[in-house]
Amino acid sequence: MNDTICALATPQGGAISIIRISGAKAIEYTSQIFTPRRGLPLAERKSHTAVFGDVCVTPCELLDEVLVTIMRAPYTYTGEDVVEISCHASTYITQQLMLALFAAGARQADPGEFTMRAFLNGKMDLSRAEAVADLIASSSKASHRLAMNQLKGDFSNELGNLRDKLLKLTTLMELELDFSEEDVEFADRTQLMQLCDDIDRVMTRLTDSFAVGNAVKNGVPVAIVGETNAGKSTLLNALLREERAIVSDISGTTRDTIEGMMNIGGTAFRFVDTAGVRETQDIVERIGIERALEQLKKSSIALWLVDPAADYTQMEITAKKILPECKDKKLAVLINKSDTVRNEHLAQVMEWGRNLVAECGEDVVWDSDDIWAISARYRSGLDRLEEFLVRSAALPSISSGDVVVTNVRHYEALARALANIKEVKQGLELGLSGDLVSEHLRAAINNLSEIVGEVTNDEVLGNIFANFCIGK
Amino acid sequence: MNDTICALATPQGGAISIIRISGAKAIEYTSQIFTPRRGLPLAERKSHTAVFGDVCVTPCELLDEVLVTIMRAPYTYTGEDVVEISCHASTYITQQLMLALFAAGARQADPGEFTMRAFLNGKMDLSRAEAVADLIASSSKASHRLAMNQLKGDFSNELGNLRDKLLKLTTLMELELDFSEEDVEFADRTQLMQLCDDIDRVMTRLTDSFAVGNAVKNGVPVAIVGETNAGKSTLLNALLREERAIVSDISGTTRDTIEGMMNIGGTAFRFVDTAGVRETQDIVERIGIERALEQLKKSSIALWLVDPAADYTQMEITAKKILPECKDKKLAVLINKSDTVRNEHLAQVMEWGRNLVAECGEDVVWDSDDIWAISARYRSGLDRLEEFLVRSAALPSISSGDVVVTNVRHYEALARALANIKEVKQGLELGLSGDLVSEHLRAAINNLSEIVGEVTNDEVLGNIFANFCIGK
Repeated sequence: MNDTICALATPQGGAISIIRISGAKAIEYTSQIFTPRRGLPLAERKSHTAVFGDVCVTPCELLDEVLVTIMRAPYTYTGEDVVEISCHASTYITQQLMLALFAAGARQADPGEFTMRAFLNGKMDLSRAEAVADLIASSSKASHRLAMNQLKGDFSNELGNLRDKLLKLTTLMELELDFSEEDVEFADRTQLMQLCDDIDRVMTRLTDSFAVGNAVKNGVPVAIVGETNAGKSTLLNALLREERAIVSDISGTTRDTIEGMMNIGGTAFRFVDTAGVRETQDIVERIGIERALEQLKKSSIALWLVDPAADYTQMEITAKKILPECKDKKLAVLINKSDTVRNEHLAQVMEWGRNLVAECGEDVVWDSDDIWAISARYRSGLDRLEEFLVRSAALPSISSGDVVVTNVRHYEALARALANIKEVKQGLELGLSGDLVSEHLRAAINNLSEIVGEVTNDEVLGNIFANFCIGK
Repeated sequence: MNDTICALATPQGGAISIIRISGAKAIEYTSQIFTPRRGLPLAERKSHTAVFGDVCVTPCELLDEVLVTIMRAPYTYTGEDVVEISCHASTYITQQLMLALFAAGARQADPGEFTMRAFLNGKMDLSRAEAVADLIASSSKASHRLAMNQLKGDFSNELGNLRDKLLKLTTLMELELDFSEEDVEFADRTQLMQLCDDIDRVMTRLTDSFAVGNAVKNGVPVAIVGETNAGKSTLLNALLREERAIVSDISGTTRDTIEGMMNIGGTAFRFVDTAGVRETQDIVERIGIERALEQLKKSSIALWLVDPAADYTQMEITAKKILPECKDKKLAVLINKSDTVRNEHLAQVMEWGRNLVAECGEDVVWDSDDIWAISARYRSGLDRLEEFLVRSAALPSISSGDVVVTNVRHYEALARALANIKEVKQGLELGLSGDLVSEHLRAAINNLSEIVGEVTNDEVLGNIFANFCIGK
């Protein structure tokens, strides 16, 4: 924390590159390589001024003409002195500039280290710091709004309210505890119970919101299942259309499962192409099929793609494997390649499909209209599919100010806090003594403190900021 | 020129994105969406100050917390009012910000339009404006130095000196012309001739420097030729090593010819993989072979890759096609797959190679040592190849201050000017009258004026700036 860090804050390419420097010696180090074209030296400039000048990393040789913005502590992003060098976006120039800053004494910033310093210097709490990463990653109105609400501190405020209530509850409990020898119940147990219910309700709402928050942030998971050769990959390509490039954005996710994201009607969907399901003796293929069923379990919506060339026996085998895994999921049965078969046969296959769903899919969320013919290749029947997807996702729209949990770490801490509150309630109902109950109360308060970072440790911090990009 | 333009100046990704706005209403438009967190409104701030605040594109909904830097005309890059908005690097945020600026009245900048405005507002001459694009594209010390020398104005100054000399020559000529009826030669023809020689020498040096400048900027062209299956692609991959990613950087270049660039010992090489050369009746393959020979003609260095499994007849056929095209080129003969053959056979093939070069390659720049065994697959013999390449390229090292022509447009204008000067010299030698000679002199001055942009037209400007990236 005592050293001065620097990082390239923009990717290679474009017209301008930004190098960001933060720390007590940010201005001193910059002054070693930068000379203003006119006027005062950098160290004598006011905070929040932009200065045009020359960068020389070797004596007498101009590396670039740059714009340097200096911002002095404490009114900066990190709370330390911050310098931003805006240079020409050449790989050579940025590389030489970084090397010169290292030579001056700065060190390469770790991922998210600027934001971590902002947190450690008390510029923002941990949940707001995490929102910065979400904000940068946001690519839709909904995901942006969630991140911005969190960055503005709506979530922190909600947690603050919760903690106030918990503290009130603790005080009442401990008051009781102090006088326990006198065998007097100072705290009205009914009042305590009411407060508990209140806290439980808010926490349950927050933990429940995670399903929505996660869907908005990561997309509603849709599994495309069916027999080999039913045209699943063609359907995926058809759904992703020219926006297929987004696929490559999801680097780091295993390519054999997640295949692509797409915004449809304002909702992000994460389409998962799976291995074809059929009877097989091949061990590798069986593993593929097991994975397909695993993916199906994790999804909210299932698209069962049927090859109309299949006969009833084939469809039955697939149905018996797929449909039991579709419990509580929205299902659509799509008869693909509609251009290749006669209408009578299509009607026959749809009839079979309806019967099989009725027979094997008892817990499936399904309407007998949710079966229709498509041609993934010729893009017919896809408008109806998109409507079905948007209707089935049915995400509540998020307003500015809504508090929604989007972060797994927050969700888990809230879930632990909620479990503790349930224990407290049970203790109150059973008439347990105050000291037994207040242990769970303290644990719940601790859980909430973890979220905003009041209780934390280096390992947790390291994990959080390692997911940031360098330069932020 | 009267409207206000804006553009995203950084590529998608990273931590920070920069939106750049230039024009009379840059500050006004920004004020419509931006509110400082504290203090004076944007319009009342001093030039070259950075202001932290909130961007709202729809009422009451915070889009982002940003840092806005305002710079007032005339001390800006474009010479107009310039605003830079530094926001979180989210695709959603940058998109919404751009849309909001369009709604306010700004328009999307064309590629290079900021720099074009800088030129039109007299902030820099045309050759310096062009250097900005080269500077951004520079990826090595040498290419950076060339661009920076040009940006600093070294080239413009050299042209200025040349023009001064030409003008002096013109004055002397015209003096003679004014008094021509009196049949007096005021200008001493010997003195004129000396001045001409002087100008000729400088111009010749500049046009000659283009070969070096072009090699530094675009890489020394190296053709890899030989029979099909000799291992040319393997050699290319071995030469490019892990830096193969650079290949994809050269988008827009035809993939069937240019295959990859690589810096070796500070020099950039542009390796060209070609179709295998052999006797064939296949028309398509013949076209490929013709192209390979075409590429060979354009290269400075030729690598003839030999498959040691070939017999003398095969090698002779290839040699007779390849070697006559290697006039004045540095040649290396590489016997590939050295790991697959016995030493005696290798020695035999090398003997054949030496004989064939001696026989068919009379104008080839070649030493009998420039033949050796390699294994592209196991990377043996490649150190020697890299040494050979660096030695053969033998580019003069470029110092800060050296004037080197790197731009085709400049080269062509200089070549035309030089041709005009040659005409002037011839005219003087033949004793032609001043008015005949001074026509070529005026043309030469015009040619030089084109380079710095004193004489220009919209079409020329359009072509130049179309090659810039957007946001610069």
